[in-house]
Amino acid sequence: MRVRDLAETYAIVTLDTPAIEAVRRLAAERLPGLVVVDGRRRPLVVLPGSQVLRLGVPRYVQDDPALARVIDETHADVFLRELGDRTVAGCLPERRPELPVVAEDDTVLEAAAMMARMHSPLVAVVDGGGAVVGVVTLHALLDRVLSA
Amino acid sequence: MRVRDLAETYAIVTLDTPAIEAVRRLAAERLPGLVVVDGRRRPLVVLPGSQVLRLGVPRYVQDDPALARVIDETHADVFLRELGDRTVAGCLPERRPELPVVAEDDTVLEAAAMMARMHSPLVAVVDGGGAVVGVVTLHALLDRVLSA
Repeated sequence: MRVRDLAETYAIVTLDTPAIEAVRRLAAERLPGLVVVDGRRRPLVVLPGSQVLRLGVPRYVQDDPALARVIDETHADVFLRELGDRTVAGCLPERRPELPVVAEDDTVLEAAAMMARMHSPLVAVVDGGGAVVGVVTLHALLDRVLSA
Repeated sequence: MRVRDLAETYAIVTLDTPAIEAVRRLAAERLPGLVVVDGRRRPLVVLPGSQVLRLGVPRYVQDDPALARVIDETHADVFLRELGDRTVAGCLPERRPELPVVAEDDTVLEAAAMMARMHSPLVAVVDGGGAVVGVVTLHALLDRVLSA
């Protein structure tokens, strides 16, 4: 069993993927995060779900969470309006930590070790040219080892 | 809509919860992590799934991931045997960062702001006495704002 057998493509986005699409994909596929790739599908950053969520939380609420208590609107309205026409580029972290990346023919145990070491619930799977071919999530990996 | 309406209890474990049970619960409920509580249900730490996973990855593989390539067993066997009779206590981080905690009557937007600010895909919900009554996950929150 190699990581390519567990890799999925839902979690791959580009810098110009609309934030609303990223959020819907996170929700529909129960993804822990997204892998952002450049124009040649090389991995740029692993974006945790909490940071995609950030785009939907108004700036004034992030600055002063107490304001969230007094907002006189439904929360969904606020959240979706904030996403507007923003893109994934807007939620990139300032710091770019080392990326959790494995090769197509790495073993599932190597992917597990990578997740554990880098504290990441997903790893990007790259081919020989360094292009992302898929993503292995913590849950895909757990499903595999628990059902075997 | 207050956070208590989104709070679930699957993600609450104690220090002596068996690691295998923690892993099965993560998998079955697609949880991003667990909230570890003490004997009085006060929150101790939020444990990401990647760190629960760590218990199932043999020490020698964590130290030298290249060894994972040459292991002559099915990965599931290795993983499950490593979990053995270990408990959640064994995967606590050495550093205990600030906990993402919200009060029962906080709004969903406050929980979202907390997740975004603390880079956490789950927040503990506490009652007036500081005991954990449930956990709000990123996905429970996204389901709510996207379906509204």
